[in-house]
Amino acid sequence: MTTVPTGAADQSPGEIMAREIAEQPAVLQRVLDEGLPAIREVAAEITRRRPRFVLLTARGTSDNAAYYAKYLIEVLLGLPTGLTSMSTATAYGARPDLTDVLSITVSQSGGSPDLVAYTETAKAAGALTLAVTNVAGSPVNRASELSLDVLAGPEKALPATKTYTAELLTLYLLIDAVRGGDGTATKALPEQAAAILDRHDEVANLAERYRFASRLVITSRGYGYPTAREAALKVMETSYLPAHAFSGADLLHGPLAMVDNVSPVIAIASEGAGGKALEPVLDRLRERGADLVVVGSQAHVEGASAGFVLPSGVAEEVAPVLEILPLQRLAYEVTMARGLNPDAPRALAKVTETK
Amino acid sequence: MTTVPTGAADQSPGEIMAREIAEQPAVLQRVLDEGLPAIREVAAEITRRRPRFVLLTARGTSDNAAYYAKYLIEVLLGLPTGLTSMSTATAYGARPDLTDVLSITVSQSGGSPDLVAYTETAKAAGALTLAVTNVAGSPVNRASELSLDVLAGPEKALPATKTYTAELLTLYLLIDAVRGGDGTATKALPEQAAAILDRHDEVANLAERYRFASRLVITSRGYGYPTAREAALKVMETSYLPAHAFSGADLLHGPLAMVDNVSPVIAIASEGAGGKALEPVLDRLRERGADLVVVGSQAHVEGASAGFVLPSGVAEEVAPVLEILPLQRLAYEVTMARGLNPDAPRALAKVTETK
Repeated sequence: MTTVPTGAADQSPGEIMAREIAEQPAVLQRVLDEGLPAIREVAAEITRRRPRFVLLTARGTSDNAAYYAKYLIEVLLGLPTGLTSMSTATAYGARPDLTDVLSITVSQSGGSPDLVAYTETAKAAGALTLAVTNVAGSPVNRASELSLDVLAGPEKALPATKTYTAELLTLYLLIDAVRGGDGTATKALPEQAAAILDRHDEVANLAERYRFASRLVITSRGYGYPTAREAALKVMETSYLPAHAFSGADLLHGPLAMVDNVSPVIAIASEGAGGKALEPVLDRLRERGADLVVVGSQAHVEGASAGFVLPSGVAEEVAPVLEILPLQRLAYEVTMARGLNPDAPRALAKVTETK
Repeated sequence: MTTVPTGAADQSPGEIMAREIAEQPAVLQRVLDEGLPAIREVAAEITRRRPRFVLLTARGTSDNAAYYAKYLIEVLLGLPTGLTSMSTATAYGARPDLTDVLSITVSQSGGSPDLVAYTETAKAAGALTLAVTNVAGSPVNRASELSLDVLAGPEKALPATKTYTAELLTLYLLIDAVRGGDGTATKALPEQAAAILDRHDEVANLAERYRFASRLVITSRGYGYPTAREAALKVMETSYLPAHAFSGADLLHGPLAMVDNVSPVIAIASEGAGGKALEPVLDRLRERGADLVVVGSQAHVEGASAGFVLPSGVAEEVAPVLEILPLQRLAYEVTMARGLNPDAPRALAKVTETK
């Protein structure tokens, strides 16, 4: 394993991450304005090939985007979907029969050797392969039959932010196009994202309660669950605060014992079925006296210790594009409050080359 | 959501969990002696029906057993495999086409309503359904076309131990039988398990370094990764110590920043391809000055700060049945050392009824 160090030279701490967080409304607008023709072409080819099963391959932040796509594909397309365990192919030499399988590799850089190796294996095993990356012409793209560029522009901060939301939106538009949709639910996202990011003072306020925390639990259900995972990853890789993401249901199967009145909890509870399915979990957390911060609907925030209200009327399946924004900003604020530099987490390199 | 409390009445703290951990060699022997005929019948039926994809549905400890089965199915049977996101069906009403799909539900109690609902959905959607539970005739069994009893006997401690290893062995024997194997690799497991459990003083020794820890990272790759997840769950639900499980590759994609010389790391590094793929990760951890405890091969333990050596010559794909044993015992010892009762974690019920 080698690492390619990139760095935060000459900037003030957090400047790069803050700038890339702030770019997101423009990136989302670019995906809508310039990305759609290519997305529709790829969707048409997928429709023509009629896959019966979907595999998603990714690591880190892109793995959380892949998780979101898994929910979308199962719910909107009715296709059973799995997340790849790459080591089955790269370490154990598994050569599954992937006839009728659509294999999607999601990656910011498209450069990690294990992603390339798995994508090549999937293609050789008969899968229709699609690369969703932020680097057109990357090794993962070259290994794939189809490619989509998420158009986020160069990402310089080590913690990925704008490539995550660009991946989410690209994957949503693709899956929506496969079912014959026209992306209507996404039109207002850039404007809504800008309005959310303008409220950074609210987030800075929330961040104060985590400055001296020694752990954090983040929970959600359904479409919000990938948001919980990505928020936990963002907090861990910038502030080094141990943050656990649990689906609300899994939380009750064991880890709830870890939550008490000194373990703060963040719940992502949007309008819709996911937020509704989370309500019994929120009740249990309140019973246990947990410090509960909700990112989501007005009603859910009102039942919590504190929170950040997201705009109402957003279709639940695209809400994750907005939900993560205050949480990215929260990771940034907590890190700054702890005197650390979110642009340059210790031990990390931008392109992680795992084999 | 309702909870069915069961309890630890009149016993000394940890007595029930310690007893059930100690029962495992006998349970494994029972699976080998009495379980095989039913396992072979189910394997024959699966072979006859020729599934092309596999979905596994489970929560908590059983979800870690399902994760192990996912690796086995992909590597040994060459079938693409996914872990179910139940909320897609239960919260969002997804009705995927599951023709040619084998759907396996793994559960200690077979009683959680969401598992039952998902199993019914899978059956209605055309899947061949199989229940792997510890309660013959449970609701999940009744919802399934095929059933296997993991024969662990009643499990009374809230943290599952013997049902986990019984599930692992049952799933291995099933998958091995589908590929025409005769389970040779498993014959010595009961005896090896007994020898490992006899070394509880070694584990008590290791537990001392975690008595005052405030976090724990557990890592592995390949077949050992489900062990890392289950060990983290066991530690969290008994001692409330935040324990993160990461695949070695994912650890390098962000969370490595969290590991430093005050964050202890446990690695599961067996003989074979998984342990070999983990080596670059172990190197990085050593470079960062991490306190590294290895459960695995002699060579890997020698390169670490401390460890627990597992017997050599065990086939890598059945090693997880043994690897978890010292880690279950470690969770028990750390919990006792912290003055808590592992038999009765706060907030937990034996049958978790999530919907």
